Amino acid sequence: MSLNAVFEGVGSAVAADVRNAQATFTASLELTGTTECRGATGTSHRVVVDEPTSLGGTNTAANPLEYALAALGSCQLITYRFWADRLGIRFDKLSVEVEGDLDVRGFFGIDPNVRPGFGAVRVKLHIRGPEPRTRYEELQRAVDAHCPVFDALSRATPLQTSLQVD
Amino acid sequence: MSLNAVFEGVGSAVAADVRNAQATFTASLELTGTTECRGATGTSHRVVVDEPTSLGGTNTAANPLEYALAALGSCQLITYRFWADRLGIRFDKLSVEVEGDLDVRGFFGIDPNVRPGFGAVRVKLHIRGPEPRTRYEELQRAVDAHCPVFDALSRATPLQTSLQVD
Repeated sequence: MSLNAVFEGVGSAVAADVRNAQATFTASLELTGTTECRGATGTSHRVVVDEPTSLGGTNTAANPLEYALAALGSCQLITYRFWADRLGIRFDKLSVEVEGDLDVRGFFGIDPNVRPGFGAVRVKLHIRGPEPRTRYEELQRAVDAHCPVFDALSRATPLQTSLQVD
Repeated sequence: MSLNAVFEGVGSAVAADVRNAQATFTASLELTGTTECRGATGTSHRVVVDEPTSLGGTNTAANPLEYALAALGSCQLITYRFWADRLGIRFDKLSVEVEGDLDVRGFFGIDPNVRPGFGAVRVKLHIRGPEPRTRYEELQRAVDAHCPVFDALSRATPLQTSLQVD
């Protein structure tokens, strides 16, 4: 299935009223164990998160950092798919490996000069298909310019936290 | 179970050799449908990602942006748990709602001045327990200073992409 119909449908909707470009995504979770979290996304898909036993958890599921990397990798794959259709670039197979380096001194408060998040993230795409290399490089540039999670991580995202004491 | 033993274990390991502070988290995925992605994290937990039908997918699972928000929300919950133990702050119940606003003109290339990622993310924590409000506010400040995914999103994270044509 070509995704150009989605480009066209969204383009028409936004041309009719720019407010149609605004979307809000959500997720809700509760702490259900020592580190286990359970919840759902706004689209009603269940999510389970945990830590490995080395970090005090029960290893029921992937941990938050792994989900962040999976979000980035899958967002790259899907953005490749959308923009390949948009640019008329064919491919047969696409996969990704994502690695994120963390210095745990940040999280554990051992060194206030070490950031708690990733010091570096590497995203390695593998593509196979009938096009010349230059077309896949053109695709890569389009993807990195339009991938939402790539943008959210690589540039500062405005975040607000609030705490309600029940 | 208290997580102070994890703080102490990590602290000792890092004091013995600072290289013990370095960790690498990973995730690998393949595009298995129009927008469906399947894979696993380095800890061998399976991950499935998809888009809703309105975006050309089959709605098999949450989409990348929802996983990014779930990663952020669960990272906040777990960091609350760790730092509550560290600071000796008790609580009985903890949950979170995360909302992310996206202007789809960025992803679809309709307006190059609109960023593809979230324009704003709101993290709403709900806590219940026996401590005075000021202690929970102290906890919130500690969490926002040490939460890895909060840091990864709120500050620019160094990202590199590479593309291998097989």
